[in-house]
Amino acid sequence: MSKRTDVNELGEFGLIEHLTHNIKLKNKSSLKGIGDDAAVLDYGDKMVVVSTDILSEGIHFDLMYMPLKHLGYKSVVVNLSDIYSMNAIPKQITISLAFSNRFSVEALEEFYEGVKAACDFYHVDLVGGDTTSSLKGLFISITAIGEGQKDTLAYRNGAKEGDILCLTGDLGAAYLGLQILEREKQIYLSNPGVQPDLGSNEYIIGRQLKPEARKDMITEFFPKAGLVPTSMIDISDGLASELFHICHASGVGAILNEGGVPIRPDVEEQAIAFKLDPITCALSGGEDYELLFSVAPEDLEKVKYMPDIYICGEIVGKEEGIKLHTKGGNIHPLKAQGWVHFGND
Amino acid sequence: MSKRTDVNELGEFGLIEHLTHNIKLKNKSSLKGIGDDAAVLDYGDKMVVVSTDILSEGIHFDLMYMPLKHLGYKSVVVNLSDIYSMNAIPKQITISLAFSNRFSVEALEEFYEGVKAACDFYHVDLVGGDTTSSLKGLFISITAIGEGQKDTLAYRNGAKEGDILCLTGDLGAAYLGLQILEREKQIYLSNPGVQPDLGSNEYIIGRQLKPEARKDMITEFFPKAGLVPTSMIDISDGLASELFHICHASGVGAILNEGGVPIRPDVEEQAIAFKLDPITCALSGGEDYELLFSVAPEDLEKVKYMPDIYICGEIVGKEEGIKLHTKGGNIHPLKAQGWVHFGND
Repeated sequence: MSKRTDVNELGEFGLIEHLTHNIKLKNKSSLKGIGDDAAVLDYGDKMVVVSTDILSEGIHFDLMYMPLKHLGYKSVVVNLSDIYSMNAIPKQITISLAFSNRFSVEALEEFYEGVKAACDFYHVDLVGGDTTSSLKGLFISITAIGEGQKDTLAYRNGAKEGDILCLTGDLGAAYLGLQILEREKQIYLSNPGVQPDLGSNEYIIGRQLKPEARKDMITEFFPKAGLVPTSMIDISDGLASELFHICHASGVGAILNEGGVPIRPDVEEQAIAFKLDPITCALSGGEDYELLFSVAPEDLEKVKYMPDIYICGEIVGKEEGIKLHTKGGNIHPLKAQGWVHFGND
Repeated sequence: MSKRTDVNELGEFGLIEHLTHNIKLKNKSSLKGIGDDAAVLDYGDKMVVVSTDILSEGIHFDLMYMPLKHLGYKSVVVNLSDIYSMNAIPKQITISLAFSNRFSVEALEEFYEGVKAACDFYHVDLVGGDTTSSLKGLFISITAIGEGQKDTLAYRNGAKEGDILCLTGDLGAAYLGLQILEREKQIYLSNPGVQPDLGSNEYIIGRQLKPEARKDMITEFFPKAGLVPTSMIDISDGLASELFHICHASGVGAILNEGGVPIRPDVEEQAIAFKLDPITCALSGGEDYELLFSVAPEDLEKVKYMPDIYICGEIVGKEEGIKLHTKGGNIHPLKAQGWVHFGND
């Protein structure tokens, strides 16, 4: 190889696009490939929805404050969230682990306890997997498989001018939970005698250590109201980045209203304690696993009185760009921040 | 955690069984879970067959002699082989990669070139995936998805007393290819000026670096002959280990005829050069990705004249155990050797 381009020049999404842009789908059953939260396969009566994620120790999780049982639970939830965000229902998962001999059977049992708890809660079956060794660290790869109906699946690319933007819950807490855990870790490392001070931040830390996917929306509230979003995505990387994905895929712009983005008072308070702007935590923090979706204007009545739904903006023409309407009444272009860090060997 | 059990006490299969033994399938569509080459999901007209593998640098591959393009190709083939071994046809794959910043965009392009070559050759679509960073090394997790017919899928557990054991091709070459590559690596490491001497071992080295899955059997020869194996497995860990899996799952014994296990003359020669017994390479070497399957006695005529099929033994009662009938006329109990090594952190 004569040329050496660092992957950070492209970023995660740029890299995937670069590596896969010339892939053409050959099989009739491959309805939707790369470029959404999940792939969609047409296997007859039902659509099969497939999503996959890989989590890497030291990048996605830190076992100093992430108990293995929580890690097992969260690893599953993160994948299920991708299936729900297609307006589909997860049914099966496979798990592959690579781990070094630092991990005992008991440690792996703990991890699987979390996996099983998530499978039970979300009514999903663990149907396969692989375990192998790694020279260093733990890697978790999960594939989730679900089912959906052809005419009610929600893709990223269906948002239209005039659609209403909605959120399923409050944002920013997971990111602040991580900040608190990181702070206590640093204090512990410099003085192992000190007990961690997690304060009364159960909710905030819980959002980081044990997030939930919005099963209730997909299996209960949406079908009960007869609502099919025109586009949908789950918030893993932060609201701004997800809104960019929807706008980019749909060929539209958007106005996001800061006042419509729900942030809890305890989250605001913690943000300020960390000298962070609360809206920045919501926009760029990520890991909240709430759903961002758009609905046709005629469906406004359906979402207006739905529990835990927040109307946070609207879809506009592409030429208007993607903007934030602040509480102060200003309108700025929105910035999407990535979180790609590739480690050193 | 008070107790610490080393994973090597259980071995890879023991570990999976230990961690997953209390899992009960909840969903109607989960037809077959853990314990075969792939899971089987009932999503309507067709059965969806899903298999997943994780490959870890320094354990499964060595980039000193494995070009990234070959690695991409092989990673896909290994997974497709698991789908074919269910008598199903792979249609889609997802790929997740975790890699350190040692890997450039160009290196990843090379890997994906191999992935695409395999997807083209096997007519499979890459429909999803994830890329992330690792603190050290490369990890590849692939999930393959295929389709099968409910009444023609071949599981591990269908072998019956009196069935005939068959193989689709010669064994042992992939393992000897690895020995040659390892030898040349050691020579190179102690004297970087020396050119590797791979001799005239194209076939043997090719079996290690660029294995193929037996698509021809599943999409052509078997259906043409109207053959449905009573049980089937692909040979990734070595013939002995795979035969144990079939016998264990089916509750039967087996007699394997050494004379019926095809080993090429050049493979025999190389084995002897390495002071290895050729049959041991075939029994325990692994990575040949041929199919081991059983057929009902009345199907003998169907396999007898099929190209590249070798009759290598028969299924007997469980009480007779699993035995090797040597060329010399002796009968020994067969030993299955595992290849589990968990690395150090």
